[in-house]
Amino acid sequence: MSLIVQKYGGSSVANTERIRKVAERIARVWREGHKLVIVVSAMSGVTDRLIELAREICPEPSGRELDVLLATGEQTSMALLAMALHSLKIPAVSLTGAQAGIVTDGSHTRAKIANITPKRLREHLQAGQVVIVAGFQGQTETGSITTLGRGGSDLTAIALAAVLRADLCQIFTDVDGVFTADPKIVPNATKISEISYDEMLEMAALGSKVMQARSVEFAKKFKVVFEVRSSFHDKPGTVVREATEDMENVVVRGVTLDRDQAKLTILGVPDRPGIAAHIFTALAEADINVDMIVQNVSQHGTTDITFTVRKEELARARRVTEPIAAEIGAREIRWEEAIAKLSVVGIGMRSHSGVAAKLFHALAQAGINVQMISTSEIKISVVVDEASAIKAARVVHDAFELGHQGSPDSSGG
Amino acid sequence: MSLIVQKYGGSSVANTERIRKVAERIARVWREGHKLVIVVSAMSGVTDRLIELAREICPEPSGRELDVLLATGEQTSMALLAMALHSLKIPAVSLTGAQAGIVTDGSHTRAKIANITPKRLREHLQAGQVVIVAGFQGQTETGSITTLGRGGSDLTAIALAAVLRADLCQIFTDVDGVFTADPKIVPNATKISEISYDEMLEMAALGSKVMQARSVEFAKKFKVVFEVRSSFHDKPGTVVREATEDMENVVVRGVTLDRDQAKLTILGVPDRPGIAAHIFTALAEADINVDMIVQNVSQHGTTDITFTVRKEELARARRVTEPIAAEIGAREIRWEEAIAKLSVVGIGMRSHSGVAAKLFHALAQAGINVQMISTSEIKISVVVDEASAIKAARVVHDAFELGHQGSPDSSGG
Repeated sequence: MSLIVQKYGGSSVANTERIRKVAERIARVWREGHKLVIVVSAMSGVTDRLIELAREICPEPSGRELDVLLATGEQTSMALLAMALHSLKIPAVSLTGAQAGIVTDGSHTRAKIANITPKRLREHLQAGQVVIVAGFQGQTETGSITTLGRGGSDLTAIALAAVLRADLCQIFTDVDGVFTADPKIVPNATKISEISYDEMLEMAALGSKVMQARSVEFAKKFKVVFEVRSSFHDKPGTVVREATEDMENVVVRGVTLDRDQAKLTILGVPDRPGIAAHIFTALAEADINVDMIVQNVSQHGTTDITFTVRKEELARARRVTEPIAAEIGAREIRWEEAIAKLSVVGIGMRSHSGVAAKLFHALAQAGINVQMISTSEIKISVVVDEASAIKAARVVHDAFELGHQGSPDSSGG
Repeated sequence: MSLIVQKYGGSSVANTERIRKVAERIARVWREGHKLVIVVSAMSGVTDRLIELAREICPEPSGRELDVLLATGEQTSMALLAMALHSLKIPAVSLTGAQAGIVTDGSHTRAKIANITPKRLREHLQAGQVVIVAGFQGQTETGSITTLGRGGSDLTAIALAAVLRADLCQIFTDVDGVFTADPKIVPNATKISEISYDEMLEMAALGSKVMQARSVEFAKKFKVVFEVRSSFHDKPGTVVREATEDMENVVVRGVTLDRDQAKLTILGVPDRPGIAAHIFTALAEADINVDMIVQNVSQHGTTDITFTVRKEELARARRVTEPIAAEIGAREIRWEEAIAKLSVVGIGMRSHSGVAAKLFHALAQAGINVQMISTSEIKISVVVDEASAIKAARVVHDAFELGHQGSPDSSGG
């Protein structure tokens, strides 16, 4: 008998019919004799509708009250799922975040889990009940309702798996798992059966959209092995865990493409200490998230600094940067929106050389120019022209042999 | 500076526009320097929609989970009202029933308030905040969410007014107050400015629909003076309080009509002790609510027993009664749906004689036959033919001079 934590996202509980399907899946596992903790999100669309309602009242609603409002979404789906289990004769009980003992800090709408006291949850498990917990929510020490922000339900599931020392943690979602590349862009992309936390973190941060990075970080910190899989069929998904020796043998785990970046270059920056700090402090203070930063070799006492931001933040980034460029006597500012960031990720890079060379070779052969390069221990990112982005992803995916075995050459544009 | 408890029903917070109106009303009172506790219902229609959703999942959902689900209704409206107050620059905070310290027994969907620990509520009041409390809900000693059943939000308001020793308790609703008769039936009915708990209880029990009897009982028990008034304008409503000497001078406070009754007569019942107990125990066990009971004088060793039930329970009442009638050797069962119960209510009856005589005289003059009579200390009820019901209400209302002064004779049918 195992203790299993399962999390079902909004699309898995989008309507009463899907809730019944989820209940049937849970019932099958329960009948095998396992103890089950189920974390649910709000039915898809509900959270957005609640936010809209709040905006009708008040353009900038207070975080505390927005959390009170949003928390009703998961409370609704957890009650409905409990009822669906009851009608299958499965004993089940639902708990809000507060009732499940999830205590957070007071940062409303993006609270951090401070600790979990799962006394009540354990009592219900011991009584033989399936325990359904509202994802995405908790309460402060003083008893105010909080929400955990985007991806919060995954975090709830992983935190509960950690504190309950669950044997298995399954994140059910509307995708089959983590892929070597986005199958919409690279048709012969394959599902990854096992991936390390660090690789998953890079993939998440690079926009593979399966999971928020902080849930993965939390799982890594507390060594929670979890599986990302689809709630629409019974095929296994992707298991995320600490790196094994076996994993090190694969040089590149996957290729990701981020087409939401824009590039900003400050030309002719005086090459003095503190200039870069000045620029990036100002950007940070304006809450602009800078991704890649490249500074070219200094020539004649000046240098060029290039960085990328999200497209929607480009205009603000320019407004922040322009007065500073003038102040420090930089020559010119240029920007470019039609770019894409391609990355290859793999812990195997630590022990294998030649990854960068292979990447650049593949791009060069396809006639794709590399505009920026940035590397980390398990990742190499390049910025390319947006028009070449899809072609770039395909040729790189092929170069590292990530596609289906025997798949046709798909390096064409 | 007073402490005022206000309750707003579902129609008063039906949409974001109305919520803003309610916020404006609260803001005006707050700016006068009063402390305010606001109890809100779910936006009208929401509770019904949630019940429907539950039924889609499960024909008979568990009470515990239904309460978890329904409690989201008030949680939604309280958060929205807090936001609306914030946008008027009024400091406001919302609390669920559990957060407000409302502890109930474990009878899900119709829980009784066991006690209230308003520590947190008082802290927020002391901090100068308007405190918004979800009506209709609480939690058990062990922390399960409960709801208080129909009219539960009124009960929340009155219970909070009691425990906080509020100076004023106002129940805002979609009617102007309590009337001497239903204005739809008796056009010259007038609003009652003051009414005693006992009269209000009889009016409520007799279907005047303004408030559930148990909220009034609770107010009576804890001596909470409250006012029922409209949230759509600023006119005063009806104050409900302990009887004053002044009130005793009015013989009849109001006339009510209940057209939802049916009559069942068992003819030729052997006049032995225990027979009536046998019949009414069986009806009680079948959960059939019997209203009036009249037993005629015994003749030749047999008697006739007549009682009324709600129309929708007539068929069940017959099924319960028939085997018993056969068993005890009664002659026959008859029933009649086309009846109405008219009642006059007033604590003045205690000290004034001739009320019954005046009632019967008025009905006789209008040619209306009285089928059953039942009296209590502050109420006289008669059953009349349904076709005469409206006429009966009008002539009685006129006979006791309850209409507008100088109003035209409205005794016509």
